[in-house]
Amino acid sequence: MKIISGGITASKGFYSSGVYCGLRKNKEKRDLALVYSPVLCNAAAVYTTNQVKGEPLYVTMKHMEDGKAQAIIINSGNANTCTGDDGRYKALRMAELTAEKLNINKNDVLVASTGVIGVPLNIEAIESGMDRLVEDLNKEGNDRACEAIMTTDTIAKSVAIDLKIGDSIVTIGAMAKGSGMIHPNMATMLAFITTDIDIKQELLQDALSESVKKTYNRISVDGDTSTNDMVIILASGEAKNPVIKEKDANYQAFLDALNYVNTYLAKLIAKDGEGATKLIECKVVGAASEDEAATLAKSVIKSSLVKAACFGADANWGRIFCALGYSGVTIKVEKIDAAFESSEGFIQVCRGGTPLPFDEKKAKLILTEPEIKIIVSLNDGKSTASAWGCDLSYEYVRINGDYRS
Amino acid sequence: MKIISGGITASKGFYSSGVYCGLRKNKEKRDLALVYSPVLCNAAAVYTTNQVKGEPLYVTMKHMEDGKAQAIIINSGNANTCTGDDGRYKALRMAELTAEKLNINKNDVLVASTGVIGVPLNIEAIESGMDRLVEDLNKEGNDRACEAIMTTDTIAKSVAIDLKIGDSIVTIGAMAKGSGMIHPNMATMLAFITTDIDIKQELLQDALSESVKKTYNRISVDGDTSTNDMVIILASGEAKNPVIKEKDANYQAFLDALNYVNTYLAKLIAKDGEGATKLIECKVVGAASEDEAATLAKSVIKSSLVKAACFGADANWGRIFCALGYSGVTIKVEKIDAAFESSEGFIQVCRGGTPLPFDEKKAKLILTEPEIKIIVSLNDGKSTASAWGCDLSYEYVRINGDYRS
Repeated sequence: MKIISGGITASKGFYSSGVYCGLRKNKEKRDLALVYSPVLCNAAAVYTTNQVKGEPLYVTMKHMEDGKAQAIIINSGNANTCTGDDGRYKALRMAELTAEKLNINKNDVLVASTGVIGVPLNIEAIESGMDRLVEDLNKEGNDRACEAIMTTDTIAKSVAIDLKIGDSIVTIGAMAKGSGMIHPNMATMLAFITTDIDIKQELLQDALSESVKKTYNRISVDGDTSTNDMVIILASGEAKNPVIKEKDANYQAFLDALNYVNTYLAKLIAKDGEGATKLIECKVVGAASEDEAATLAKSVIKSSLVKAACFGADANWGRIFCALGYSGVTIKVEKIDAAFESSEGFIQVCRGGTPLPFDEKKAKLILTEPEIKIIVSLNDGKSTASAWGCDLSYEYVRINGDYRS
Repeated sequence: MKIISGGITASKGFYSSGVYCGLRKNKEKRDLALVYSPVLCNAAAVYTTNQVKGEPLYVTMKHMEDGKAQAIIINSGNANTCTGDDGRYKALRMAELTAEKLNINKNDVLVASTGVIGVPLNIEAIESGMDRLVEDLNKEGNDRACEAIMTTDTIAKSVAIDLKIGDSIVTIGAMAKGSGMIHPNMATMLAFITTDIDIKQELLQDALSESVKKTYNRISVDGDTSTNDMVIILASGEAKNPVIKEKDANYQAFLDALNYVNTYLAKLIAKDGEGATKLIECKVVGAASEDEAATLAKSVIKSSLVKAACFGADANWGRIFCALGYSGVTIKVEKIDAAFESSEGFIQVCRGGTPLPFDEKKAKLILTEPEIKIIVSLNDGKSTASAWGCDLSYEYVRINGDYRS
């Protein structure tokens, strides 16, 4: 497995584009993206668990019923959520416009939107941009598509890798957006993945669902579960590998590669959390089960008090215990150790639920780094899980105090 | 029922005091408080649901087993939590020291601590302050006790009321602290209530549990459920009212008065949330049940995105729907209306889950007030509940980025 360039279009048979159509006030940033495969693909998806769902999700779910798709149209600047019948019509219209321009079936077009909730979508702007969007489709279109799906993201997020399945080179390419309103318990953001692997649709869905659980569902920026999030994967089969029909070694190799791609993007999203100054990983080891380890890790990552302490590089480990204590998982406080780690070193601050004297200056140095790790040892089993988040900064408050302006 | 002065010592037979003993660096602020009744009282309590509990809670729970108590000693500056056997010994020692000085049974002394977690308690400081603490006991001791239990609180919190039960005047007095790490699902902070009512212990516990559910359990500052929170009520019986033995009209009158006191303090706590610039009430009406209304109201109040929008006086109602959608309660989006209200007026922003055009300037004016109300109409039943919280400000981040320094 190796990292390659090209992002979402690295996989054989995929094209992408991104244009400015007029949804956003800022003309400097593109706001409409398209991903396209001339070949009909096996497709799989995971959606937000929020009961309030964006209108595009209903269209995408409907068009996913046959497990096939070949285009995804995505806009930023408006979530097309809480927009009623008008919103539903416009989401469907986005699929229709795309199908017309590409001369494909509208049921093979998936739709995603991200941005402000509760504002009618400017479908005329999208309509006016469609010709340019389709003309712009390109094997080098990743960067433009990435930019077009960003909202408060400060960096574009994409990655691609190659792996070998039998004698064939298989590629996975992906792009994602996500900054605020990101929280485990669903897809947690927008991510679009292409691959040229030949795989049965049911197995593609299994692999995606399994992978999302361990990657995007383990990040948290602010504890809010968004209305519009989804992860979509399209598999063109162009790699001409021996088709994957069961959960064998080839399936596992693909799943591992998919996990790599999704972990990479999930960490980028956490690190680029609104206003974040550092990436925080909470690694829980010695748990009775991976699920319990994950629940505990997520509880720590989600705590506003832990996040604010990380922002201030304050080794206030009591707040970690506080978050462990209300996670819902039964814990044995008297067995738990806690430590901090970064490129500046490692420091244990608590053993068996009681304080260890530690060097505050060293702790400060460790916690001042841009990537820090909180290690919680339960000493109560053999399972491990990590969750990723970011610190809580002044900037988060500034961004979200006036998002609509 | 009328509001009177005197706070925690307004009830007949109660004395309180507060001194500086050396637990805090800042000598300008008292850090040790005592509440005392020469008469043995019926007592009731509610504790945090966090599995990680402060050591004082274990001592208090043990001493509450017989439902009787006559003194409460409280320190700020150190939570005495995650401090192991040493911490347990010191919490017990606080009860013993109090019992010795007051010449009462140590099992009738309750103990509470608040402050940083995971730091050994300076019991010598407490020991050195005990003589002054007991000498200071006074009918006018409310303000000093209030100050001594404050941590990041910016205002002291106390209230007292009179009500008539039969021909007797019954008084309820109370003080509370709470600022960060406050979240529904437990007592949510420290509150100490005295009353001179004569009531059976079981009914006192029922009244307290019932009242906490509708008051302190409906506030959220930052979503973190603390390790040390408890609410204690002591009833001296000195009002000489006809003893309350069943859930009759007199019990109900007492419960209403207790709800008044607890709501008053709960709102003060929410308003004084760390860094808060405004009190936010979310009122959910037209719900199928009060429990569902409360769950939805709490979900809105807790959302970082809603809180940040309130800080910025931004009428971003989509975030309210987002929080309703992930609350866990089944909702009918297409029936829901939303509005904002404050002393500057009322504005509806959404009807039937879709946007209403509204005057942005007026909305801004309404949301700039120090007390704002979010009104969510489910149009799906007759039940109502409110929850209270505060906005998320730069100041919250500053306070919690460097709490231990």
